[in-house]
Amino acid sequence: MNDRLRQQIDFLSVLDREKQIERQTRLTDGSRRENDAEHAWHLAVSALILAEYANEAIDVFKTVAMLLFHDVVEIEAGDTYAYDIEGQKTQKEREQKAADHLYGMLPKDQAQKFRALWDEFESGDTPEARFARALDRFQPTMQNVAQDGRDWRARGVKLGPMLARNEATGQGSEILWDVSLNEWILPNVRNGNIVDDRVTGNQSIDVQLMGDEN
Amino acid sequence: MNDRLRQQIDFLSVLDREKQIERQTRLTDGSRRENDAEHAWHLAVSALILAEYANEAIDVFKTVAMLLFHDVVEIEAGDTYAYDIEGQKTQKEREQKAADHLYGMLPKDQAQKFRALWDEFESGDTPEARFARALDRFQPTMQNVAQDGRDWRARGVKLGPMLARNEATGQGSEILWDVSLNEWILPNVRNGNIVDDRVTGNQSIDVQLMGDEN
Repeated sequence: MNDRLRQQIDFLSVLDREKQIERQTRLTDGSRRENDAEHAWHLAVSALILAEYANEAIDVFKTVAMLLFHDVVEIEAGDTYAYDIEGQKTQKEREQKAADHLYGMLPKDQAQKFRALWDEFESGDTPEARFARALDRFQPTMQNVAQDGRDWRARGVKLGPMLARNEATGQGSEILWDVSLNEWILPNVRNGNIVDDRVTGNQSIDVQLMGDEN
Repeated sequence: MNDRLRQQIDFLSVLDREKQIERQTRLTDGSRRENDAEHAWHLAVSALILAEYANEAIDVFKTVAMLLFHDVVEIEAGDTYAYDIEGQKTQKEREQKAADHLYGMLPKDQAQKFRALWDEFESGDTPEARFARALDRFQPTMQNVAQDGRDWRARGVKLGPMLARNEATGQGSEILWDVSLNEWILPNVRNGNIVDDRVTGNQSIDVQLMGDEN
């Protein structure tokens, strides 16, 4: 086969390793953690089903492609847990290096195209990137709730950091954020699965939680 | 949340179970079998990278969407191994029933849209379906070769049934079929990983294999 096709097949063979990058989030039935490849598939399907809830007009195909590739760098940089402060210090550098190497395996035109798509996802600066990032927050929350929030409780996850992380959902979709916050996150604060550190700085959320106490 | 969004989220929650449907194909490093969700992700990414090799002009987005959904029915119908003759007798009926139920969970417009996409994949009657089906043959062959064909040898896979199954690759992409046949399948016949039952009925393949013997 010619060099171009050889490069493409080599890249696709290396991508197989994404099936072995374990995330923190468990499957809905709690039986095991999910991996990056499964997660990327679930987000891509979610984009097809939930596109109508994006805050802005989006190119759905671009969003799907972005989600399919969004965790490829973790093949070499590993998964960094959302609340791992130490790991986050080196995350950007590790991921940039992995992106240089992995996307660099492709023929030049595709290397540029798909690297640019990942850079766009990371920047969060376009309607597609905002909606893709919203789904990347929404789906793990959905799966944690399906297990009655037991992972949040086990890890002692606090409301403040969780809200900081999940504000991306609202930036991509106010409607999905409304579900995530009011039907999933706040009920899990009320039942103690998420620690109520009450440092939200978000008056409406504070008022809701205080309201519970009266 | 409203009924429409509730139906969509319920569907996406059920889709999580696709991560637990095990296929026969192993990961490239042989460590475990892959599941349907990982497989669907790998095919969708492959479509983005290899679209230029489709025999006919294709709508790449439609092909990607088709691949993301192509195994959803297996959540309820299970995976039927390519060379399981008994299982194949009931496969169509089991899968149609699963499709009725699973796609029926979605709001009516989406149920129709995504069910039609799966029906199209199954029929293999459009350029997108032909290319999607080509990738569905090409990727498992690629992964078997990465493990030096040990699963083929362990199962006693024969050339005749393998060619019958893999002819779909050529219907979607002559270029990928050339790689699959000449760089992957025939070398594994020559080294004994695939049983040479020489009932190919394909003169050019028979001539190639006979040529080896001279």
